[in-house]
Amino acid sequence: MEGTDDDVPLILTWDDTNSGLLSEETEGGDENGVGGYDIVNNQVIPAVGRPPNYTAHNASLRQSWEMNYQEAAIYLQEGENNDKFFTHPRNPKALAAYLFAHNHIFYMMELLTGLLLMVLSLCEAPAVPSLRLDVYVHATLELLALVIVAFELCMKLRWLGFHTFIRHKRTMVKTCVLLLQFVEAIVVLIRQTSHLRVTRALRPIFLVDCRYCGAVRRNLRQIFQSLPPFIDILLLLLFFMIIFAILGFCLFSPNTSDPHFNTLENSIVSLFVLLTTANFPDVMMPAYSRNRWSCVFFIVYLSIELYFIMNLLLAVVFDTFNGVEKMKFKSLLLHKRSAIDHAFKLLVSRQRPMGVSLKQFDGLMRFYRPRMSARDRFLTYKTLNTAGAPMLSLEDFYKFYEVIGLKWKARRSGEHWFDDLPHTPFLIFKGINLLVKSKAFQYTMYVVVAVNGVWILIETYMLNSGFSWSRIVPLSYIVFLTIYGVDVLLKITGLGPLAYFSSGWNLFDFSVTVFAFLGLIALAFNMEPFYFIVVLRSLQLLRVFKIKQRYRNVLDTMFELFPRMASLGLTLIIFYYSFAIVGMEFFADVIYPNCCNTSTVAESYRQINVTIGNRTVLDEGYYYLNNFNNILSSFVTLFELTVVNNWYITMEGVTSMTTHWSRLYFMTFYIVTMVVMTIIVAFILDAFVFRMNYSRKNKEPQLDPEDENGIVFEAEVSRDEALATLELYKQTCPGLSSINSLQGVLLAMDRSGSSDLVYLGRRSRTKSDLSMKMYEEEIQEWYAEFSRENLPQSDGSLVDRELDVPSPCPEHEP
Amino acid sequence: MEGTDDDVPLILTWDDTNSGLLSEETEGGDENGVGGYDIVNNQVIPAVGRPPNYTAHNASLRQSWEMNYQEAAIYLQEGENNDKFFTHPRNPKALAAYLFAHNHIFYMMELLTGLLLMVLSLCEAPAVPSLRLDVYVHATLELLALVIVAFELCMKLRWLGFHTFIRHKRTMVKTCVLLLQFVEAIVVLIRQTSHLRVTRALRPIFLVDCRYCGAVRRNLRQIFQSLPPFIDILLLLLFFMIIFAILGFCLFSPNTSDPHFNTLENSIVSLFVLLTTANFPDVMMPAYSRNRWSCVFFIVYLSIELYFIMNLLLAVVFDTFNGVEKMKFKSLLLHKRSAIDHAFKLLVSRQRPMGVSLKQFDGLMRFYRPRMSARDRFLTYKTLNTAGAPMLSLEDFYKFYEVIGLKWKARRSGEHWFDDLPHTPFLIFKGINLLVKSKAFQYTMYVVVAVNGVWILIETYMLNSGFSWSRIVPLSYIVFLTIYGVDVLLKITGLGPLAYFSSGWNLFDFSVTVFAFLGLIALAFNMEPFYFIVVLRSLQLLRVFKIKQRYRNVLDTMFELFPRMASLGLTLIIFYYSFAIVGMEFFADVIYPNCCNTSTVAESYRQINVTIGNRTVLDEGYYYLNNFNNILSSFVTLFELTVVNNWYITMEGVTSMTTHWSRLYFMTFYIVTMVVMTIIVAFILDAFVFRMNYSRKNKEPQLDPEDENGIVFEAEVSRDEALATLELYKQTCPGLSSINSLQGVLLAMDRSGSSDLVYLGRRSRTKSDLSMKMYEEEIQEWYAEFSRENLPQSDGSLVDRELDVPSPCPEHEP
Repeated sequence: MEGTDDDVPLILTWDDTNSGLLSEETEGGDENGVGGYDIVNNQVIPAVGRPPNYTAHNASLRQSWEMNYQEAAIYLQEGENNDKFFTHPRNPKALAAYLFAHNHIFYMMELLTGLLLMVLSLCEAPAVPSLRLDVYVHATLELLALVIVAFELCMKLRWLGFHTFIRHKRTMVKTCVLLLQFVEAIVVLIRQTSHLRVTRALRPIFLVDCRYCGAVRRNLRQIFQSLPPFIDILLLLLFFMIIFAILGFCLFSPNTSDPHFNTLENSIVSLFVLLTTANFPDVMMPAYSRNRWSCVFFIVYLSIELYFIMNLLLAVVFDTFNGVEKMKFKSLLLHKRSAIDHAFKLLVSRQRPMGVSLKQFDGLMRFYRPRMSARDRFLTYKTLNTAGAPMLSLEDFYKFYEVIGLKWKARRSGEHWFDDLPHTPFLIFKGINLLVKSKAFQYTMYVVVAVNGVWILIETYMLNSGFSWSRIVPLSYIVFLTIYGVDVLLKITGLGPLAYFSSGWNLFDFSVTVFAFLGLIALAFNMEPFYFIVVLRSLQLLRVFKIKQRYRNVLDTMFELFPRMASLGLTLIIFYYSFAIVGMEFFADVIYPNCCNTSTVAESYRQINVTIGNRTVLDEGYYYLNNFNNILSSFVTLFELTVVNNWYITMEGVTSMTTHWSRLYFMTFYIVTMVVMTIIVAFILDAFVFRMNYSRKNKEPQLDPEDENGIVFEAEVSRDEALATLELYKQTCPGLSSINSLQGVLLAMDRSGSSDLVYLGRRSRTKSDLSMKMYEEEIQEWYAEFSRENLPQSDGSLVDRELDVPSPCPEHEP
Repeated sequence: MEGTDDDVPLILTWDDTNSGLLSEETEGGDENGVGGYDIVNNQVIPAVGRPPNYTAHNASLRQSWEMNYQEAAIYLQEGENNDKFFTHPRNPKALAAYLFAHNHIFYMMELLTGLLLMVLSLCEAPAVPSLRLDVYVHATLELLALVIVAFELCMKLRWLGFHTFIRHKRTMVKTCVLLLQFVEAIVVLIRQTSHLRVTRALRPIFLVDCRYCGAVRRNLRQIFQSLPPFIDILLLLLFFMIIFAILGFCLFSPNTSDPHFNTLENSIVSLFVLLTTANFPDVMMPAYSRNRWSCVFFIVYLSIELYFIMNLLLAVVFDTFNGVEKMKFKSLLLHKRSAIDHAFKLLVSRQRPMGVSLKQFDGLMRFYRPRMSARDRFLTYKTLNTAGAPMLSLEDFYKFYEVIGLKWKARRSGEHWFDDLPHTPFLIFKGINLLVKSKAFQYTMYVVVAVNGVWILIETYMLNSGFSWSRIVPLSYIVFLTIYGVDVLLKITGLGPLAYFSSGWNLFDFSVTVFAFLGLIALAFNMEPFYFIVVLRSLQLLRVFKIKQRYRNVLDTMFELFPRMASLGLTLIIFYYSFAIVGMEFFADVIYPNCCNTSTVAESYRQINVTIGNRTVLDEGYYYLNNFNNILSSFVTLFELTVVNNWYITMEGVTSMTTHWSRLYFMTFYIVTMVVMTIIVAFILDAFVFRMNYSRKNKEPQLDPEDENGIVFEAEVSRDEALATLELYKQTCPGLSSINSLQGVLLAMDRSGSSDLVYLGRRSRTKSDLSMKMYEEEIQEWYAEFSRENLPQSDGSLVDRELDVPSPCPEHEP
């Protein structure tokens, strides 16, 4: 019944006997030999008169199957990673390179090289003082890193083939940048001094290109996709700005005491800065003091530009973003589906072309998730196989990505962890359980937290500022910490460790409390972990926000969004990096105390001694600290520019020490951050509105406690099935570990005494799951459209159509 | 066939013979008498054995009908204005008061009184210097205005009845405020001096309550509805702020040169201001200069508070706003529907309870739109009557509000206005028509505008700032103006004036050009309308934005949104007013040059003479201009606070001259403006996203040129119909004007020689029309739900259910 060794794969791949097929010039005979079946609309049409020109004896057959498993696993991986199929390896040589370039060691190497290249700018002149390296050291390091990158690119070339390689845009850009950097690094090494190396701003490309930075790449793509409408509105904004600049110049230039509008250039700059509100009342004041009605000009300008067009910008970006998110989800979904289609065709046998047997599935999984235990592979198969049929149909197999990340655990028979204990402890634990689950207990804890909060506030308020902090641990701290400790202990014992730690909130409580205790211990050893404790005390107060559904929602969403937020943050840092390099190349050491005396903002850079009474006090303007002297200072300065307030002081300071054209740098930076920030706002808006819509649309599942923790699947295993599977494994893959894990199932059955066992597979819910539910109806349409487009022709045409590249698997050709 | 004088209304209202019915204690007999028909699911069930206790002779019958028309018109008016039905007038006395209080003269009086009361604060101490009035003058004016308000309230009391009056919350609040203001005004008059009159901040209530400010009321309601989620997130924001304030105090208070964190209060204030970014790099600088890593504190704070939670705030408000908009639309729609239900029942006769005849419809319209011509009434009836049946069914009647605002015009037979001209001029005009419609002409004009723009920019750039502006008109101005003038003339002659002026863009072109010519003429008379010309020149450049679809969309939406934006602006001004009054009462004359020497912002208020070289220059801080000395200055100051940048300078200045508690005023104002501004942003976002979704959903209608200008209905009138209608009018209402307008139709038919004429009714498209299309499916659900809820019982129960008020129309009781 189940697939035996006599089954012959429907499609053969990478087989030595078929390697001839993989060149673009395939012979008709061979093609017929393996491509004899065409799947049209899920109907298998047997090829008539196919010559039996393939060896059918067992060893070779097994090898064919292994090859197929591997290619299917690669397809599924490509589906998961959203790699285009035209980069699919096409022959055994490519496969070797592919496998070499697709594992975590290689990815880590990519990441570390990228990071090293970026971190180098800490040590290159202008360097952070404590990290300065000699030119030959950092240049050698750079060359080393570049050589590694070159090696990575060679592997990629080997795997993709020259043809695909030069068509892959991102890789080509990377190659060009690599060459440039190479030349420059050698020049630096020869001249023993850094020249004006603005091209270092391109270094992030190496980081962005690595596998682990896929999210950053997607963000960048999304930013570029949102650009066209953004630029349109930006032009409108600039248009109004220039009109108002002309008008302002005409109106206010007769006033000689007004430095903001005395030339057209000043007028434009003033209004550009006004757009960011950074100079607001000041820019108006000279005119306002002459004529009170001149405020109308500024009010109208701000109303149109700041309150209307800037919001319009957000609206347009938000709208585009919305559409892009949906399209992205759609294309990802369809890509995965077609990956599954490809994999499925590689897994079915000639004898049974409509289904995948456990054996084949297991073979696939050994390549796809090498570290998954045999038990979990079997359970995954069971979960996919909803109909209980002996084979997985394509329809079943489509759910592959939904169940692949599940963590499996046997369902506990009892309700509480202490059900098996003797009577007296049972009663005690039951009591604790009831206690910690009671509303009264929860609200008592909220009250304690609130009291703690007020207490901290009052305590801090009562302290003098000169107080020596580290000496004294307030008694209240110990008292409250004890209460929290008891709370945590009660909950752990009452709910059982497993149930307790399955909630993120409890995990948060636990770790904060444990850290607070550690802080206390450190304090006992006079280690002054003072800031640590202050922060922890405050974090403990955060519990009080569990009290309201809305806060739970908001904080849950916050945690769910965290990965995405982090990737957006990283994207921002990459922009920062490029701007920091450019800033350092042009403006390093331009700013110093008492500089910029010719500018209007000289006061902010002043550092003089002032005598007040009989004391001499240093009167500092401090702004000389906002410089581009090294990469860390540049980052801080750029953050200040991002926050926008008073950014023109830095701009005017630098401008007065260099040329007028420096303003271009600052204005460009402002516009770029505006784009990124608008995207971030649009993202947060979109994510929250989506989430709220979702919870409104699916009110019932929210009440289901299991669903709140994530996605749960069930699989029931009977003793017979387990035995049969064990037998199968003994035959096919005699690895000890896999047999052990299956014997574990049988042992568990023996222990519980029942003839079947239910396993629960859990994973946390992702945005994709939410999207699946939200777009339920549309998804069906997309699928229908997708199969209309792809199935009437041979399936392989999908690959051809996508990028007009020769099909990697010739047997897909009609 | 059509309703004759013998028809008896199904329901009698306000009739003298039935006036007894209108009290709450209705006699059973009478109730049977008029409520004998119950409409259940549109099925009329005749009352059995109803005593014929009403007079049926003609004059009385006609009077009954007139009464019914009037009440139906009132219902429809209530539906249009979204007045609750429990304020429906219930007896002839109430009706008189209702009619008195519902016309434009009364509305204008309300509006003017409200405005007068608000404007008074210009003249009351602290007054705008040039507008100061003596105490007895402005107090008398105030008393006068308050008496008028009292009179209005009396009318309302008369119309609503005491019972309804005290249940109507808004009216009760108004009454209380009125009493308070009365007492205070008298006290002022007696003491001959203004005391601390903070209650003047409540004056906007009188303005908000008037009929014309319905949009402002709706905005306020929407703001209040968005408050609960807003406050939740605000608490989260404040929570993090306080935690960071404690942490900042602990970290930075040891640094004695750091004034921002030396006490807990300062620490909280600094971080509150930092939330607005107004003190950004400055607040960090002292700590940053000590230890470079202290920037982490500020970066983390800003990332959490400014970039995350503030955006969350927007997301939450946007989400609520979205929901509220939809609910508002739904309730308005259903309210209108039930108003139509009520009106319909009053218009059907006993003989024909399922339909409304033209006669009845006409009677209704004479009350509902007294100034509508008979022709238009007839055409409206024809439009409603889609089935061509002799009567309007309820289903037809439901479209009442869609067709009521149409402007009717006979469809022109020819395509161009010059079709009837002789051959030679026809050819000339045809040529012009083809020319102005050609792409080449349009793009030439765009190029001219662009050249003009660049020209202006260069010209302005070349000028010295000391140039005497008014003397010289640049030649280029005259040249370009001539080109624009020719363009306008060509378009008017080519398209015909009617077609030309029907487009908003053309209207804009035309008026800008005409005004520019006027400016030129004024210049010829040495009138120096210089600013005028500069503005107009810039406005002319705006045409270039017609070139791209997105800009047209954006600008069209801008114009569509303008009324709503204006009402939001008005709402903001009302908040400003209240805050300005409070600010004036507490902080008038607190700020003056060289004040605030004890604060950290003293420099901004300094006004001293500085000697540079041999010149004495006035070094001005200017911030003393941002004061609360009169209401106009207060408005400007509040606008500066809204823009937020450097707002803490004003706050600290005022605080140093008064008490610490003044900060509460500024912080409250900041939070209130934050709410209003967030709502405005949410509104703009919502409106644009809605609009874009709409145009995506309805791509085809966008291509239809007629639909782009608004909504168009058609009605075809045959000669026979027109004659029959004329006959009907001659019988029923022998007014000359109505007969004339119908005879006009016949004349037009004679002229064109055809036996029927098609009329087009147009109106501009409103948001409601868009919503109707967007929510098409949901609307059907709402209707179904609505009729399920209301029809099984007697229809009147709807009114009862809504506000638990006795039904105004006893015949509605089951």
